[in-house]
Amino acid sequence: MIRFECDYLEGAHPEILKRLAETNMKQTIGYGCDEHCKNAAELIKKACNAPDSDVHFLVGGTQTNTTVICSVLRPHQGVISAETGHINVHESGAIEATGHKVLSLPSTDGKLTAKAVEEYLSNHANDLNREHMVQPGMVYISYPTECGTLYTKQELESLYLVCRNGGVPLYIDGARMGYGLAANGYDLTLPDIAANCDVFYIGGTKVGALFGEALIINDKNLKKDFRYFIKQKGGLLAKGRLLGIQFEALFENGLYFEISAHAIDCANRIRKIFEECGYEFLSDSKTNQQFPIIPDNKLEILSRDFTYDYWCSMGNGKSAVRFCSSWATTKENLDALEKAVKAL
Amino acid sequence: MIRFECDYLEGAHPEILKRLAETNMKQTIGYGCDEHCKNAAELIKKACNAPDSDVHFLVGGTQTNTTVICSVLRPHQGVISAETGHINVHESGAIEATGHKVLSLPSTDGKLTAKAVEEYLSNHANDLNREHMVQPGMVYISYPTECGTLYTKQELESLYLVCRNGGVPLYIDGARMGYGLAANGYDLTLPDIAANCDVFYIGGTKVGALFGEALIINDKNLKKDFRYFIKQKGGLLAKGRLLGIQFEALFENGLYFEISAHAIDCANRIRKIFEECGYEFLSDSKTNQQFPIIPDNKLEILSRDFTYDYWCSMGNGKSAVRFCSSWATTKENLDALEKAVKAL
Amino acid sequence: MIRFECDYLEGAHPEILKRLAETNMKQTIGYGCDEHCKNAAELIKKACNAPDSDVHFLVGGTQTNTTVICSVLRPHQGVISAETGHINVHESGAIEATGHKVLSLPSTDGKLTAKAVEEYLSNHANDLNREHMVQPGMVYISYPTECGTLYTKQELESLYLVCRNGGVPLYIDGARMGYGLAANGYDLTLPDIAANCDVFYIGGTKVGALFGEALIINDKNLKKDFRYFIKQKGGLLAKGRLLGIQFEALFENGLYFEISAHAIDCANRIRKIFEECGYEFLSDSKTNQQFPIIPDNKLEILSRDFTYDYWCSMGNGKSAVRFCSSWATTKENLDALEKAVKAL
Amino acid sequence: MIRFECDYLEGAHPEILKRLAETNMKQTIGYGCDEHCKNAAELIKKACNAPDSDVHFLVGGTQTNTTVICSVLRPHQGVISAETGHINVHESGAIEATGHKVLSLPSTDGKLTAKAVEEYLSNHANDLNREHMVQPGMVYISYPTECGTLYTKQELESLYLVCRNGGVPLYIDGARMGYGLAANGYDLTLPDIAANCDVFYIGGTKVGALFGEALIINDKNLKKDFRYFIKQKGGLLAKGRLLGIQFEALFENGLYFEISAHAIDCANRIRKIFEECGYEFLSDSKTNQQFPIIPDNKLEILSRDFTYDYWCSMGNGKSAVRFCSSWATTKENLDALEKAVKAL
Repeated sequence: MIRFECDYLEGAHPEILKRLAETNMKQTIGYGCDEHCKNAAELIKKACNAPDSDVHFLVGGTQTNTTVICSVLRPHQGVISAETGHINVHESGAIEATGHKVLSLPSTDGKLTAKAVEEYLSNHANDLNREHMVQPGMVYISYPTECGTLYTKQELESLYLVCRNGGVPLYIDGARMGYGLAANGYDLTLPDIAANCDVFYIGGTKVGALFGEALIINDKNLKKDFRYFIKQKGGLLAKGRLLGIQFEALFENGLYFEISAHAIDCANRIRKIFEECGYEFLSDSKTNQQFPIIPDNKLEILSRDFTYDYWCSMGNGKSAVRFCSSWATTKENLDALEKAVKAL
Repeated sequence: MIRFECDYLEGAHPEILKRLAETNMKQTIGYGCDEHCKNAAELIKKACNAPDSDVHFLVGGTQTNTTVICSVLRPHQGVISAETGHINVHESGAIEATGHKVLSLPSTDGKLTAKAVEEYLSNHANDLNREHMVQPGMVYISYPTECGTLYTKQELESLYLVCRNGGVPLYIDGARMGYGLAANGYDLTLPDIAANCDVFYIGGTKVGALFGEALIINDKNLKKDFRYFIKQKGGLLAKGRLLGIQFEALFENGLYFEISAHAIDCANRIRKIFEECGYEFLSDSKTNQQFPIIPDNKLEILSRDFTYDYWCSMGNGKSAVRFCSSWATTKENLDALEKAVKAL
Repeated sequence: MIRFECDYLEGAHPEILKRLAETNMKQTIGYGCDEHCKNAAELIKKACNAPDSDVHFLVGGTQTNTTVICSVLRPHQGVISAETGHINVHESGAIEATGHKVLSLPSTDGKLTAKAVEEYLSNHANDLNREHMVQPGMVYISYPTECGTLYTKQELESLYLVCRNGGVPLYIDGARMGYGLAANGYDLTLPDIAANCDVFYIGGTKVGALFGEALIINDKNLKKDFRYFIKQKGGLLAKGRLLGIQFEALFENGLYFEISAHAIDCANRIRKIFEECGYEFLSDSKTNQQFPIIPDNKLEILSRDFTYDYWCSMGNGKSAVRFCSSWATTKENLDALEKAVKAL
Repeated sequence: MIRFECDYLEGAHPEILKRLAETNMKQTIGYGCDEHCKNAAELIKKACNAPDSDVHFLVGGTQTNTTVICSVLRPHQGVISAETGHINVHESGAIEATGHKVLSLPSTDGKLTAKAVEEYLSNHANDLNREHMVQPGMVYISYPTECGTLYTKQELESLYLVCRNGGVPLYIDGARMGYGLAANGYDLTLPDIAANCDVFYIGGTKVGALFGEALIINDKNLKKDFRYFIKQKGGLLAKGRLLGIQFEALFENGLYFEISAHAIDCANRIRKIFEECGYEFLSDSKTNQQFPIIPDNKLEILSRDFTYDYWCSMGNGKSAVRFCSSWATTKENLDALEKAVKAL
């Protein structure tokens, strides 16, 4: 079976394993206060052109989202998200478990527009009974979105302007950030992202690491006491250096960008494979998630040798499915996929 | 600098790193549903003689404690703990953050007695205004305790009998369980522990793994929907196999017990080093944490080359400190410590 | 100014004030354990034909909803509600503040259909990744709904059957229950309601009392320890007898039904006033909330002497507004309204 | 049976009932935005000499404590309280249910000393592992305390200075504040209290009202969005005017102070009754709670005609019990008590 259903099917990039092995018997202090974490934080700040930001390392995405959001909001506030947002549908109510409503806005492509957020903020502020409702206290977006879509630089700048005007911090979930940055035809850079939000994270789990997410806090007010939150939410890894070492490997010589570009090349090839056989797509994704629409009887044949993620039925006997590439996708597996799709 | 302040100073046992490397490019499904996790669960159930229990793998100790406790308690209930319990003092209010009071009982040695728990339960049940108070809903102990002390088999059986009679589940935090099981002069085995509580965890982070804790749920009612809780609390690792692979290594050929025994040998030697030089101890610990009492001026000298954990002042110019051994402690470092202590 | 914007504009029915005055200097024990509360509970159980149910008295609606819902759900569960449900939009995130997501379903008339709930439950149960989502743990409806609509007996029975089959308790918010029971053309009785849900409340605040809601718990499992929850959520009134005395007055001689019928008569007259002048309505409400659609320029004139609740713009210069009647609505005020509407 | 076990045995002061009756059919807008609430707020600000403070009205004490505390603390913070504090022992875990630990300090008389708080704050701030512990985020005291004791002006000033220096708000629970202000031999006035804390409440439930507490927020930062919190925590009474009307009655002509003084006179007589018969007291309470120590066999006789609150066993066949006076205590009942005690 050749697997394409997600981007966390393998372990870590070999360079990361190598470094873990090299440092294995070294003694370091715990909880992320070691030299590797400090060095990795510096490398990331440099890559983000954000010398004054704080960098923390957490273990996973749901944990990072929960920890950030509950640290930012006051108890009467909620977080604005596209209705397709990961925090709204795929985190088992983690945000609500910390006491906060996810204020979901309709979205067809997984993105939030500046206009929609502005209207929501303004409607709340002008409602005479607003204290009977949840106050919007921050905005959550993901880059790329759960639908594989991307914001342009101008879209992000507009959204951030609305957030600043409304007094609500903007948070970007970058679980797959590398794949967004490497996508063709989009102009956002890592420094652009850092300059246009208050807090964001650069995902490691899906981009070459065994696990781990690097959180960057730009806003001064949001920095305060953040390590208490990491500890309380179970994210303060005893052997914190494991996170530092992995992000050193990813950011020392551009490995993060290099393996992201590889995944995009593979995604482009996946797209081409299906395009050339005449399949349509659910969305025009430029990232590592591709959503071809395939007749169900052909899907059944394909699924004998390949895994994918079932996305949704399109009616009339067709379904949209998700094929993911990643840093680990091999030419051999893509060749096999091409052969199989052509044979359908 | 030679470090003795805790038992998470190094990476993982080499056997674990070896297996991670061997399996690195293998594709598996995510979130702990892979074959490695299933196999590790079977190995652990066998070692516990608990064929009907459920086994889950989580990332860290605070996360495991929080996830278990909030899954067991109803909102009006609290968890009984010794006042020195990890959940009461060193988890940044993680339990309270899920809505529950830690009902702390006085304890001089870190242990809870069956008698104290029985009295507490009975006092609450007989209080006419009990609904104005937090209802005790479960009991938390750690084995070994934060003070390095241990329960005998009879003590644990008595405590569990009180819990069953009172209708409150007993949970055992086994962050350092291997070191408790390997301690000299104590009779509890892993099957004894499994037979005398409702839910417990076997710590990996401090006993040879990079990270990871194996949770064993014995009670049928507590098993229900537990994976939802792991996900909600941020503990459902995307590459869950990393946990399965590590616990396979630890439980396939008795490695967990072997490296625990090594740590106890090292701890015994640490004890002997200080004993032979005439130092007294804060407690009669048989586990991997040793608490010698040392004059502050000598501590200062020692701290030039060695790290330890400062525990508490004993007055009159002396302090109790903690020296930890672990699976990774080397003969060279113990030799150096011996030389230094003798030279004080 | 004559007010029609809501149904809590005046104090209490005079009979209630009379009884509060008569019992004022009597000494009773606190927290709802007095004879008045016990007597009122018996009267309510009789009126509901529910001799085995538990009755509790709480102060307000948001408090009652929050207390009930957080007592029923486990931490990984949410409550299904129409998207217009009071708990979803007008309780400032009170449900989320106890850790639970409101799982909102689309609804045009404020009602939940058995079919929609059945599909939601079934979709969740069949989802292979369900543990990444919030588990539906109960169903919330209001009777009448926030839109003034009502369930027929058959609709409620169907919905309750779906809930029972799905293992999720059904909870009915009866803030305005009297007005629903008194509505013309609907067949549900109080015993019908009690027989077709697991827990519900009969609202006092909006139906003649100064304040207070009577909660009836039918399901045995949901009864356990409920007073702890009332206390924890701030609803255990020290002078609990104030609630008992009020509900005695409301249920001793059918006062609750009598004043509800008066309000419906008044609502019918309000409807007729607008109908006869040619106005259309947002919904076909048979309850004490009427939603005429009025040109904005005429609304402006009307608002010089009358208050109403602005509901929504209908476009093209018209708006839907809410006029409420209640136990306290007077003939004089209705006469004045009629005159004014005719003069528009 | 003549009852002395608490200070909420009767309804309300007749003047309050009278005003509720007078205003009963008046129409007012809801949720505390009416003229009565505004007027009552002005009267209270004047009585407190606190023109810039915000005043809100809530229904009960536990509700007020919970709402205030959860609005002040960030999620990683806890509230310092004497171990006997109401929030620590008699609110069913209401504070923890909002996610916060009660950081309890030992206290023999129910009071917190400036010194103890200063040490706690300083110890936390200096702890290198402080992020593993709950951060103290505010201080809670009650005036009078649960033990009937009082702070002097100097004691309160010292405590407040420590709080300001430590950056933690001071909150005073004044459930029985009137009885503290009326106590003989203490110098604190209402303006003193207002000047020496950040937020406090003046209790109505136990001092003449049917129910209701007036919350005064002095600190500008704590004022923000407070009505959202009241609503979310179920304290925003639909007919909010009921609170305004009651507090108008209490503060328009000094009724609050007058009836408080009456209760203290009655408490002094209770004290004298027991003193003259040779009984000792658990504490030197000057407030409306008196704690005589009585042989158990005599208590049994007394309990045939009188109720009191059992406090604790003193050993050797004696117990401390609580007798409360209030605004409603009658001369007849005191005469009867005197006769009975003398006859023991």
